Amino acid sequence: MAKVKKQPRPKAETPKGFRDYFGADVAERKAMLDEIERIYHLYGFEALESSAVETVEALGKFLPDIDRPNEGVFAWQEDTGSDRPGDWLALRYDLTAPLARVYAQHRNDLPNPYRRYSMGPVWRNEKPGPGRIRQFYQCDADTVGTASVAADAEICAMLADTLEAVGIERGDYVVRVNSRKILNGVLDIIGLQDDPKKRDNVLRTIDKFDKIGVEGVRELLADGRYDASGAFIEGVGLSEKQIEPVLRFVAPQSGGTVGRIRVLNSEGKDITNLAHLSALKNVLSDSPIGLEGIEEVEQIINLVDSMGYGPDRIKADTSVVRGLGYYTGPVFEAELTFEIPDEKGRSRQFGSVAGGGRYDDLVKRFTGQTVPATGISIGVDRLLAALKAKGRIVGDTLGPVVVTVMDRDRIGDYQVMVAELRNAGIRAEMYLGNPKNFGNQLKYADKRRAPVAVIEGGDEKERGVVQLKDLFLGAKIAQSATHEEWKSQPAQVEIPRADLVSEVRRILASGL
Amino acid sequence: MAKVKKQPRPKAETPKGFRDYFGADVAERKAMLDEIERIYHLYGFEALESSAVETVEALGKFLPDIDRPNEGVFAWQEDTGSDRPGDWLALRYDLTAPLARVYAQHRNDLPNPYRRYSMGPVWRNEKPGPGRIRQFYQCDADTVGTASVAADAEICAMLADTLEAVGIERGDYVVRVNSRKILNGVLDIIGLQDDPKKRDNVLRTIDKFDKIGVEGVRELLADGRYDASGAFIEGVGLSEKQIEPVLRFVAPQSGGTVGRIRVLNSEGKDITNLAHLSALKNVLSDSPIGLEGIEEVEQIINLVDSMGYGPDRIKADTSVVRGLGYYTGPVFEAELTFEIPDEKGRSRQFGSVAGGGRYDDLVKRFTGQTVPATGISIGVDRLLAALKAKGRIVGDTLGPVVVTVMDRDRIGDYQVMVAELRNAGIRAEMYLGNPKNFGNQLKYADKRRAPVAVIEGGDEKERGVVQLKDLFLGAKIAQSATHEEWKSQPAQVEIPRADLVSEVRRILASGL
Repeated sequence: MAKVKKQPRPKAETPKGFRDYFGADVAERKAMLDEIERIYHLYGFEALESSAVETVEALGKFLPDIDRPNEGVFAWQEDTGSDRPGDWLALRYDLTAPLARVYAQHRNDLPNPYRRYSMGPVWRNEKPGPGRIRQFYQCDADTVGTASVAADAEICAMLADTLEAVGIERGDYVVRVNSRKILNGVLDIIGLQDDPKKRDNVLRTIDKFDKIGVEGVRELLADGRYDASGAFIEGVGLSEKQIEPVLRFVAPQSGGTVGRIRVLNSEGKDITNLAHLSALKNVLSDSPIGLEGIEEVEQIINLVDSMGYGPDRIKADTSVVRGLGYYTGPVFEAELTFEIPDEKGRSRQFGSVAGGGRYDDLVKRFTGQTVPATGISIGVDRLLAALKAKGRIVGDTLGPVVVTVMDRDRIGDYQVMVAELRNAGIRAEMYLGNPKNFGNQLKYADKRRAPVAVIEGGDEKERGVVQLKDLFLGAKIAQSATHEEWKSQPAQVEIPRADLVSEVRRILASGL
Repeated sequence: MAKVKKQPRPKAETPKGFRDYFGADVAERKAMLDEIERIYHLYGFEALESSAVETVEALGKFLPDIDRPNEGVFAWQEDTGSDRPGDWLALRYDLTAPLARVYAQHRNDLPNPYRRYSMGPVWRNEKPGPGRIRQFYQCDADTVGTASVAADAEICAMLADTLEAVGIERGDYVVRVNSRKILNGVLDIIGLQDDPKKRDNVLRTIDKFDKIGVEGVRELLADGRYDASGAFIEGVGLSEKQIEPVLRFVAPQSGGTVGRIRVLNSEGKDITNLAHLSALKNVLSDSPIGLEGIEEVEQIINLVDSMGYGPDRIKADTSVVRGLGYYTGPVFEAELTFEIPDEKGRSRQFGSVAGGGRYDDLVKRFTGQTVPATGISIGVDRLLAALKAKGRIVGDTLGPVVVTVMDRDRIGDYQVMVAELRNAGIRAEMYLGNPKNFGNQLKYADKRRAPVAVIEGGDEKERGVVQLKDLFLGAKIAQSATHEEWKSQPAQVEIPRADLVSEVRRILASGL
């Protein structure tokens, strides 16, 4: 046998860009996933769980002639154990690419339209950096196989319901709806029909509107501007005449004809959205695709309105871009409108927590046939962060009742107490560390946020009683009272052993 | 710009050894995970979710001097974008190795003992084959930082509770407890102290007991035997005198002194377990480690007995091995005792669905200090298969109420119906496919297992009514009645539009 060299100890570290989630963090996310799932299910969507691993070929972000196709994803080549080259496999980077593969693979067995939701982690091989997490959760719902704008409208309504279900109050969010066809129409009428690079640059610039405002967009669409650090960012090079129509769509409130006017109909109903869209029809009168886009958004707004979702929840917003991706029609974005302090203490709108839209060509890659589809993806971790920032999350931070060990020969007795509590549905455990130092047992109970510590020494055993230490009350006294009062320990009571379950239950109820 | 070659269409396939889970399968697993989590939580364990990706160094199954360390795991080397070699990363192959890393990394901030549960997928890079799935779920609970045998006892009790919580009835399972120290003692007394290879071979042979029976084990411990295919399997080469003591532990019922006798104490209580252990003390009288093992198992049996878990649920079984892995003390295995037909139609015991034990050296790899730990892992997919085999799973197979589209200009009206139903908590959707062919809409409703289809044509609209098609009843009639009766469609009722929610609710209640 070859002699194995003594190895240095391995480092106990997560890989860069990954992290561990403990206790309450896990429970909070699960509670949110459960709520989102409840709404998706209520809307008729079916669960789908595909595996974390896909072939690079099926994920399809890459050209097969790249030797190591791991740009942006975690990918590896299968070891076949022979000379035959193995398949390239990769961790999914979103839940939409796997859906396209699943639909193409199983389409003959699936209902049509196919309405599915998926929730789970996705992985991005980004350069690790502060706040950059390489594994995070997404919650998607998509309808595949229908071109009906009713599917898009439904997704918007569901998004509003979902945000409220997880604890975002009405007024604290808005679902903004646009159509890529409108933006394409605008790019057409300013003469960029045949300039894909400039088109992309204009969209990229519009996408920055939330960050740099209308003047920033204007400068970047023209010759350029200096950013906060003093660096000059070159502009797209559009003329003033090209820029004005773009700004009509990006910031109608600031520059366009609609201005700051709120438009009400004869019944006093807010129709600003529709009036704005209507006004834009004139701008796009020479672009059939642009007009089609406006009609799509109008239909969505009318449909959700008939379902009871007014502009306080879902509104048209012709500045929404949603990246340069695969969207072909309506696009949606859910934005939280409340402000939270940023890392420099300045108040900032929290911003986008979900987005989606219509994509018609993802399945075509596999089958050659266009399959219309639309869907939404919620960024669960960002949504959790938002709820925490608002103080809306009350995590499951309560620990178990801890039965302490006064006499190590009687752990059977203590385990019986624990079993009684558990049988009554009360979370409980016996202290399993070294019982020698009783102080350590109480420190452990504190660290676990135990509501109650149970104590039964030989004396108590003989008298048929146990001591209950109310750690809720103890904590309150420790915070508010003088040390002397604390030392008198009024938060400890002696009760008959037979009353263990009922007395613990009483303390738990009083602490809630 | 370089011209991009036209690519062949990608294959719409999961990678080999991976699969997709749809609808009811996902819901059933989630329901099981939720139940397991409820029990783990009740027992005082805290959630931990580590990432799917770990460094190969931390997983530690491999020697760093292997060039491509992907034997058994999915591993890849990070691309640093420079000449500097990147870290080797891998998908976790279980939940225990990450726990050891987490504990070593965070030990100063964690309560001690640290009691955590984790549930989630793990990945094995096995050669794909029938029934071999490369991604599957595990549900683990472990207590790190205590040598107390009470921790092991508690894990056994929790395992029994968990199996009952997910629907395995008492009597259909047994948790079997052994100690690796007992087996080590046996190997010592038959003179294999200094023959690690033979020790491994003996353990491997004992592990086959469930499959090949006592005579098979006897033959394999001696010179060898012919397997079912007629191939000769070489034996370990033990003498008759070495084999007899081993069989006393492996199959006391068949060969040992205890025989088939059931031992009751003076109160009529079944103490066969303890009597068996006691008898084995004589066999191991020359092995201090063996005697220590027997005492451990006795303590566990006594502790769970005091908590109310008799030998019908948790019993000592000195034949349990649990692989050659890292176990250092007590080992547990949960076995389902009912029989199901195997692929050849023969009745077979379902076998093991969970296992675990005490391991003291996993954290030591990182810190240099021995940290005692014990835990359990439930194979959720196998447990689900068992419940399905017993017909105990009633999946969430009910589809949404489907509101059909008779008039495509009135989808606003239909969406209002859907919104009403959803607001009442009733799962519902509007048909989103092409509404032209009404038959397709009903086929869709059937495929989705919709309980009710809602129909409102122009005539119904005018009269203020809707038609409800009771698809529960329809299906029953289609199964049982003649075609003529079916054609008369008694499963369809006309109701006032205003009664939509209450009438749908009535049908749903009648179908449950």
